[in-house]
Amino acid sequence: MRTVGQLLQQFLRVRARTEALCASLAPEDQVIQPHPDASPAKWHLGHTAWFFETFLLERFERGFAPHHPDYGFLFNSYYNGIGARVERPLRGLCTRPTVAEVLAYRNAVDERVATLIEEQPDSAPLAALVELGLNHEQQHQELLLTDIKAVLFQEPVFPAYAPGKPPQAGRGETGWTRFTGGRVWIGHEGADFCYDNELSRHEVLLRPYRLANELVSNGEFLRFMHDGGYARPEFWLADGWDVVRQRGWQAPQYWLQRGDDWFAHTLYGLQPVDPLAPVAHVSFFEADAYARYAGKRLPTELEWEHAARQSLAMDHPGALAGDVFEPHNAPVAGTGPRRMVGEVWEWTNSAYLPYPGYRAASGAIGEYNGKFMVNQVVLRGGSVATPRDHVRLSYRNFFHPDKRWQFTGIRLAEDAQAQ
Amino acid sequence: MRTVGQLLQQFLRVRARTEALCASLAPEDQVIQPHPDASPAKWHLGHTAWFFETFLLERFERGFAPHHPDYGFLFNSYYNGIGARVERPLRGLCTRPTVAEVLAYRNAVDERVATLIEEQPDSAPLAALVELGLNHEQQHQELLLTDIKAVLFQEPVFPAYAPGKPPQAGRGETGWTRFTGGRVWIGHEGADFCYDNELSRHEVLLRPYRLANELVSNGEFLRFMHDGGYARPEFWLADGWDVVRQRGWQAPQYWLQRGDDWFAHTLYGLQPVDPLAPVAHVSFFEADAYARYAGKRLPTELEWEHAARQSLAMDHPGALAGDVFEPHNAPVAGTGPRRMVGEVWEWTNSAYLPYPGYRAASGAIGEYNGKFMVNQVVLRGGSVATPRDHVRLSYRNFFHPDKRWQFTGIRLAEDAQAQ
Amino acid sequence: MRTVGQLLQQFLRVRARTEALCASLAPEDQVIQPHPDASPAKWHLGHTAWFFETFLLERFERGFAPHHPDYGFLFNSYYNGIGARVERPLRGLCTRPTVAEVLAYRNAVDERVATLIEEQPDSAPLAALVELGLNHEQQHQELLLTDIKAVLFQEPVFPAYAPGKPPQAGRGETGWTRFTGGRVWIGHEGADFCYDNELSRHEVLLRPYRLANELVSNGEFLRFMHDGGYARPEFWLADGWDVVRQRGWQAPQYWLQRGDDWFAHTLYGLQPVDPLAPVAHVSFFEADAYARYAGKRLPTELEWEHAARQSLAMDHPGALAGDVFEPHNAPVAGTGPRRMVGEVWEWTNSAYLPYPGYRAASGAIGEYNGKFMVNQVVLRGGSVATPRDHVRLSYRNFFHPDKRWQFTGIRLAEDAQAQ
Amino acid sequence: MRTVGQLLQQFLRVRARTEALCASLAPEDQVIQPHPDASPAKWHLGHTAWFFETFLLERFERGFAPHHPDYGFLFNSYYNGIGARVERPLRGLCTRPTVAEVLAYRNAVDERVATLIEEQPDSAPLAALVELGLNHEQQHQELLLTDIKAVLFQEPVFPAYAPGKPPQAGRGETGWTRFTGGRVWIGHEGADFCYDNELSRHEVLLRPYRLANELVSNGEFLRFMHDGGYARPEFWLADGWDVVRQRGWQAPQYWLQRGDDWFAHTLYGLQPVDPLAPVAHVSFFEADAYARYAGKRLPTELEWEHAARQSLAMDHPGALAGDVFEPHNAPVAGTGPRRMVGEVWEWTNSAYLPYPGYRAASGAIGEYNGKFMVNQVVLRGGSVATPRDHVRLSYRNFFHPDKRWQFTGIRLAEDAQAQ
Repeated sequence: MRTVGQLLQQFLRVRARTEALCASLAPEDQVIQPHPDASPAKWHLGHTAWFFETFLLERFERGFAPHHPDYGFLFNSYYNGIGARVERPLRGLCTRPTVAEVLAYRNAVDERVATLIEEQPDSAPLAALVELGLNHEQQHQELLLTDIKAVLFQEPVFPAYAPGKPPQAGRGETGWTRFTGGRVWIGHEGADFCYDNELSRHEVLLRPYRLANELVSNGEFLRFMHDGGYARPEFWLADGWDVVRQRGWQAPQYWLQRGDDWFAHTLYGLQPVDPLAPVAHVSFFEADAYARYAGKRLPTELEWEHAARQSLAMDHPGALAGDVFEPHNAPVAGTGPRRMVGEVWEWTNSAYLPYPGYRAASGAIGEYNGKFMVNQVVLRGGSVATPRDHVRLSYRNFFHPDKRWQFTGIRLAEDAQAQ
Repeated sequence: MRTVGQLLQQFLRVRARTEALCASLAPEDQVIQPHPDASPAKWHLGHTAWFFETFLLERFERGFAPHHPDYGFLFNSYYNGIGARVERPLRGLCTRPTVAEVLAYRNAVDERVATLIEEQPDSAPLAALVELGLNHEQQHQELLLTDIKAVLFQEPVFPAYAPGKPPQAGRGETGWTRFTGGRVWIGHEGADFCYDNELSRHEVLLRPYRLANELVSNGEFLRFMHDGGYARPEFWLADGWDVVRQRGWQAPQYWLQRGDDWFAHTLYGLQPVDPLAPVAHVSFFEADAYARYAGKRLPTELEWEHAARQSLAMDHPGALAGDVFEPHNAPVAGTGPRRMVGEVWEWTNSAYLPYPGYRAASGAIGEYNGKFMVNQVVLRGGSVATPRDHVRLSYRNFFHPDKRWQFTGIRLAEDAQAQ
Repeated sequence: MRTVGQLLQQFLRVRARTEALCASLAPEDQVIQPHPDASPAKWHLGHTAWFFETFLLERFERGFAPHHPDYGFLFNSYYNGIGARVERPLRGLCTRPTVAEVLAYRNAVDERVATLIEEQPDSAPLAALVELGLNHEQQHQELLLTDIKAVLFQEPVFPAYAPGKPPQAGRGETGWTRFTGGRVWIGHEGADFCYDNELSRHEVLLRPYRLANELVSNGEFLRFMHDGGYARPEFWLADGWDVVRQRGWQAPQYWLQRGDDWFAHTLYGLQPVDPLAPVAHVSFFEADAYARYAGKRLPTELEWEHAARQSLAMDHPGALAGDVFEPHNAPVAGTGPRRMVGEVWEWTNSAYLPYPGYRAASGAIGEYNGKFMVNQVVLRGGSVATPRDHVRLSYRNFFHPDKRWQFTGIRLAEDAQAQ
Repeated sequence: MRTVGQLLQQFLRVRARTEALCASLAPEDQVIQPHPDASPAKWHLGHTAWFFETFLLERFERGFAPHHPDYGFLFNSYYNGIGARVERPLRGLCTRPTVAEVLAYRNAVDERVATLIEEQPDSAPLAALVELGLNHEQQHQELLLTDIKAVLFQEPVFPAYAPGKPPQAGRGETGWTRFTGGRVWIGHEGADFCYDNELSRHEVLLRPYRLANELVSNGEFLRFMHDGGYARPEFWLADGWDVVRQRGWQAPQYWLQRGDDWFAHTLYGLQPVDPLAPVAHVSFFEADAYARYAGKRLPTELEWEHAARQSLAMDHPGALAGDVFEPHNAPVAGTGPRRMVGEVWEWTNSAYLPYPGYRAASGAIGEYNGKFMVNQVVLRGGSVATPRDHVRLSYRNFFHPDKRWQFTGIRLAEDAQAQ
């Protein structure tokens, strides 16, 4: 159990990191919306303040008054229970409040929340909402990075977000690990924070399966491309094939061919594609097509979670080791599946659906997860953009199968024989 | 094991029924495509002949020559492995071949297939493809009815497809039945025909649950509408809410309000909505929203199949009893969930995904099921439009969650306490 | 002045020709709508009957009752003053009434109109409406041909509408004729029928100009294509360039390249492009781009009309000489601009605007012309599809500048020096 | 003839005004693109510098090197002759260069142009291009104001661009003035600057007509609205009626109803609609519909120009008198049509077409006007946003008939009897 001082410290630390992520951007960079899935940096800054103001201050603060009468409309993301809002694809048309005004809003909210934490040190509901708000803020830290990447991709010179170069990755051995499966427990265990979609913890039956020790690399994906992967319908789900043709996909998001060479727009600017690094920015459709091309399949989320627990995936040295902004793949010691956490979000072949006994929270906060449980695919493991203390082995991320502006990659699986 | 004579008889019987379904239509009715999901009757007639010609005659007939050089292009549905084809939304622009020419095509194919069956009485692969082709034909018989319904809905007078009136339904008792679950087998068992997606048969763990004995009725759904169901986002999945607003949905497909009364376009023409009959032509989004409104949930496909087996659903008197073209709901004797087969396809809360150990057939025929395993939702049980000898308790139908031109309805479920 | 007998005879003759134009089509061919600008043959048949029923029978017939209560809704084209109607892009979804029922409708209307003509022989308003209705019918005869051409283009084998081959055309001398212009009269003169948009007759000032004696040929247009005409923005109006890129235009409508050779879908089936025949099925944008490529310009409609009157264009032997369904270009004797009437509609560089003193008729009939006087371009001269007694030198046809499913072609002009 | 000093002074004065117009905006306000027709302020600032760099510096500067290698791509508007460019609807996605970098670009270009002017004092081509560049800059000053207005309309609080209030306008007498017409000269006369589309000067024949002395007021337009103007198709051109229904127009652009009262978003913030001020932000379709409602018509551009010359419109006291940012209508002395210049752009019923003998300039600069001569409608007179020394009686502005984000209004005309 955390002390009040620890909670306050964590609150201030997480909040400050959000602003730090935007520190190198010009105000102009923080306004636009490069595509409807991404949001302006300014909006992320404001929305995460709004979350604390709406779900925490409004409930716990005596004599609560909103910081600004329009911000509730401007910075609501998707909570129908709260009221009207700027439609998502129009977020990039709001120039006011300015970045400076949004930062002032954040400061004001920070002070008011800090005061509340100190005044109500024993309020478990308050502490729970602080924790939810911080987890929410960390999710937006990841989105900030991917959305900034999308913004800078609009600019003809592909400016770098961070100085330096992406780490040149070697790669570990590329074997497979067998898991027996059987009757296994799935879902979050214990009293620590988790999202409602990680519950209830429940048992499932798994058949024996094998999981690749390494992620699929850029070099392997290039071979798929050279073999006509994007032009051969036999590898693709029907909906995926439609998307490939309609959008003219021929490579992962952010890849550009110049002469015979492939480059990728990264947070370090335009860089040659590293054949040993894990492929990223592929959709579920591409991950699934690659697996069929390779004669394998994607794991289910149940298989992934079971394997990760067996492999103590969180303990891998090197995972989540520092502020690297692009996937790489430095070899690590040990056996079994590697880098299951903190490299790229790994597409599974599981639809995002409620676990048995799932209960959404009541009120607007219950819109956090449950209402997205259709048409989306589960991803597991977290990426280089995920804050290191945010992800869990039971963590369920989800996106529509055609999305690829996140750091999303591929780990293969296959059925194993019973022994 | 069927004799050759039985196989031939079944072949001719099923094929003749397809033509009988179109007998009351004018040629003009058989050309148009009312929306991209539906196909012209003429196309169904030709495509089901093409299926036999392509997958059977071409393989087994010595000196095979196609009936017409263009029909392969015109009547391929979605088999990329076979080659180019008329894009689905353009099927309604093909006026040639005429209906008469298509019927001649069918006759020619029938004769050639009948000859093959007689000449190769012991060929198990031939018999298996005849069986697949007949099951395929039966699926299109269902689509013919739903697509003709869509065609006639375009006409300002809502002409009737069939004479007479839909049966006025009473309704049985509306209680619930508890199922203990546990470790249960799912999937097709035995040597009879099934689709590849019903395999492999495998065990799953089910928690205790309860299933409604009756389908949700029009009257119950009207109450949902009166309570603002279509206007209250708290009942809806996010993607569903988007669809409701974009398409302006305010009632099930085919419902029309005249004054205070609701009517529905049916295969018997425009008819008053019967409050006791089961609601049909609702999307998954509407089924799910109704369940949330009712404080319940939809069953999973596993729960549905388990309950159906427990209830011996196929034995219910009255189910599939005759050529009735619209859902009704006459009370039946007995206890437990009723009319799980042959009334309306029941939306489950299961995504359409491969069972463990799923293997698609090789070649173009393998495109039958597997490539649709994303973004779709499983439906179970068959509708009034499903041929009575076509459906099974392990049968998995699937549609995108926004579709509602099929006879799709709602059965509720809920968690049960362990005892 | 015509006698009653002559009027009746003309009425029956024109009406019968409409049906004759559809006689070789199957019912299936008469239902579909190949694109939103075209209408089904069945609709044209019904709409032209509706025109007489609505504007003539309803006004003059004692105890008028509509032939069918729904036809007013089904067959209204665009008369807001009459009431609701099937939206134009949905005309191809109406399968009822069937072709046979529409022909029965036509027969019934014919009999009732014939009766009226005989009963009210001295009614000038009646005779005027018969004449307007017949002119309207003749416009739809032209549309029937162009819309059937569009229907048959949907079919993979490009069936022929008419037997035989298009005439192989030679071509006349390709010089230019100078016109002095000055103060000239424009617009319809005399008591014969004309549309309201041909009035008022008025004087304009024209500078000296020259007009090409021949239409631009397919061979000349191929040279434009070979010189990169569709890829060089300097030839195109800005809106035209947008259309070229959005629709991927690379040749006139209906042209198809097979190997190195160009073919065109015609009413005689797929045929090699005749380099000496006039180019047809080009939009205004293409006509204008060709003119700029050639260092010339398109004539204004005033220049065209003045030149046509000077050249006695209607008297050219060969123009309108028979039932030829595609443009050709047989050489003719005489000097000056040739084939200004009856070959292809010639794009002018004049916007479709009211003449000075223009007055639309009152009531719904006033919607005939006036409400289209924006965004459209004037064409002059009539095409092979125009009934020979329908067109006049003052006749103003008009289409949006991107349309090309009509028989539309190019005649060049240029400024001349004052002498 | 201007001296070098005068030219230099004018150059610096006009350029400085552009920057002054943006001085009150935040960088955030200068990035976004509120709709595809409008451009970001930052883009206008950069594009007008690019115009001088491309058409003047590149030609006249020895050893010319571009200020930045990417700016040619970023700031080209529509000159195909110059090369590739950012597609217009994507201008709002460019965050780099920042506003500060664009201002530095402007300064650098200003210095280089000023140096050239001083170094080549006798170069007539240089002076001519400076003059063209300044006229171009002034056009963008007007667009800056209208596009900023569109940006601020996106913000929920409708921030004001300028402090204060719009002038409350009275209104002059609302009579009509008769013009005899006859054979009159049209087009620019003299050696002063004009655009190529104002030439050649030519004679036309005009019939007698009358022109309203006053612009149509907000109050008059409200009466049209109250009389169901937006719901009655009989007032509308067919294309206009389609637009009204598709976009749901019910009032001029920027108007909002709160309770029973109408407000308008203005450059002074949200303000009550002044019934005496001229209506603005109406499309051609609305102007034309209003005229038909009023039993009148719009003038042709020829009538407008002739009347303006007869009325000495430029000499009206009050016109163009100062920095007022919204149309008003203070009564002025004198007789005849008033405020024909500098209030609102007046829609005419003339399509934008070349005058007889029109010749576009050669090279990319020839794309300035000619390539827009289709689908657009001529407007005359200039608005409150037009720089006062920019407009002329022969000046031809042009927009597509559905556009209304400019200050566009209505003056009525009608035919007059010959006397």
